[in-house]
Amino acid sequence: MPDTELPATYRAPRLFVEAPLAAGAVLPLSREQARYLFAVLRRKPDAAVLLFNGRDGEWAAFLRQTGRDAGLLELAGQTRPPATHAGPWLLFAAIKRTPTELIVEKATELGVSRLLPVRTERSNQDRINHDRLTRIAIEAAEQSERLDVPAIEALQPLPDALADWPRDRLLIVGDETGTAPPMREALTGARPGPFGLLVGPEGGFAQGELDGLGQLDFVAKVGFGPRVLRAETAALVGLALGQAILGDFAKARPVTR
Amino acid sequence: MPDTELPATYRAPRLFVEAPLAAGAVLPLSREQARYLFAVLRRKPDAAVLLFNGRDGEWAAFLRQTGRDAGLLELAGQTRPPATHAGPWLLFAAIKRTPTELIVEKATELGVSRLLPVRTERSNQDRINHDRLTRIAIEAAEQSERLDVPAIEALQPLPDALADWPRDRLLIVGDETGTAPPMREALTGARPGPFGLLVGPEGGFAQGELDGLGQLDFVAKVGFGPRVLRAETAALVGLALGQAILGDFAKARPVTR
Repeated sequence: MPDTELPATYRAPRLFVEAPLAAGAVLPLSREQARYLFAVLRRKPDAAVLLFNGRDGEWAAFLRQTGRDAGLLELAGQTRPPATHAGPWLLFAAIKRTPTELIVEKATELGVSRLLPVRTERSNQDRINHDRLTRIAIEAAEQSERLDVPAIEALQPLPDALADWPRDRLLIVGDETGTAPPMREALTGARPGPFGLLVGPEGGFAQGELDGLGQLDFVAKVGFGPRVLRAETAALVGLALGQAILGDFAKARPVTR
Repeated sequence: MPDTELPATYRAPRLFVEAPLAAGAVLPLSREQARYLFAVLRRKPDAAVLLFNGRDGEWAAFLRQTGRDAGLLELAGQTRPPATHAGPWLLFAAIKRTPTELIVEKATELGVSRLLPVRTERSNQDRINHDRLTRIAIEAAEQSERLDVPAIEALQPLPDALADWPRDRLLIVGDETGTAPPMREALTGARPGPFGLLVGPEGGFAQGELDGLGQLDFVAKVGFGPRVLRAETAALVGLALGQAILGDFAKARPVTR
């Protein structure tokens, strides 16, 4: 790429694809991808595009145009190896559409590897739009320079999501009752490692749910400060603190200057 | 309040008002407030309402109806003393409407006391809707059980916002270039105290801006992990970590059970 001719904020487009990525591979563009690259982003033929599929790291490809809304990508070389680190899991009570979409977008930016929408006693949504949430996660993964897209599980009752919980994965539970220690204090001495975060719906967890969660030896109930946070805010705060204390926030971005 | 007759998720409405709050005071409701309490929230006469004005703590009042869309509030007693702790300041590059509104709402939930929109080399918005952002901040303050509403300053060039910066207030700067230490590491050993956070626009800061910021002895440049965060996500992550390490996240909420 002739970097010197590009504005300082130029970034090669990043696309999530399903196909395997390997040296010499040629990927046809879908009509939608071709339109996006040529018409929306106004990329010229031979422009560089970055690709990832969740398995093979990140690859640079050259864009070739074969028609008005048609083209293909010729893989040039690997730019990043596959990720070795799997991110946190986020369990969240199904809430309204807009905050749910915000949770999916921001959790993807923050490195979550699995999103598990759950039904709790006070959650009031019976379905999620899985296709739409997947599209939001893909877009956020493309934009945030992730190498994978988080898996979005089907909506399930909270007890089902906890039934096979791996014993080596700490589950941090946002407890709004004011009785749990602040998250940073609760995790004093905890070693970096796999974790999950569970946040409840607007009305909080029922007392019976909190009592039940307190019986589980992989659970740490924590508070997020003195104010009342909306459900989606609690999810973002818990993920930010979790990634800073236990996760990959200690890693820097690849240097860009 | 007869708690036993109320559902577990019941919460008295909280309203921000301008008037002084003191024992025996009677506040007329605006037509809008009366409609909100009687028609939207369906509160009956004599229902309890909580009030705050940013100066006098929080007060409980009883709702009296004097007409279809008219009523008043009779102050009963103080429920919380005035806050003694002032929150962090958030400087953010003016960005598009939706993410700006998200920043204002979430920063209010997270305890910010001053919001300072700034113009940077790569920010691309020349104005903010001050009235609308103030309404969003008031609503978030009511909902999050704050005792005050953050001040929202006029949009100004970044250098102006830094001109009179108090030397005892650390300014944490989100640096996306991959050269700054992770925020938690950068603040190792820092003592709780006043701080500000500065986040740039989508395209990041110009190199000259980052170099200039690095010359200031109250600035700490920090990274937020290995992914690219949107501007509004960086603001929320920086505030969450800042409040956990330097701010009031060590305080618990009043116990609600």
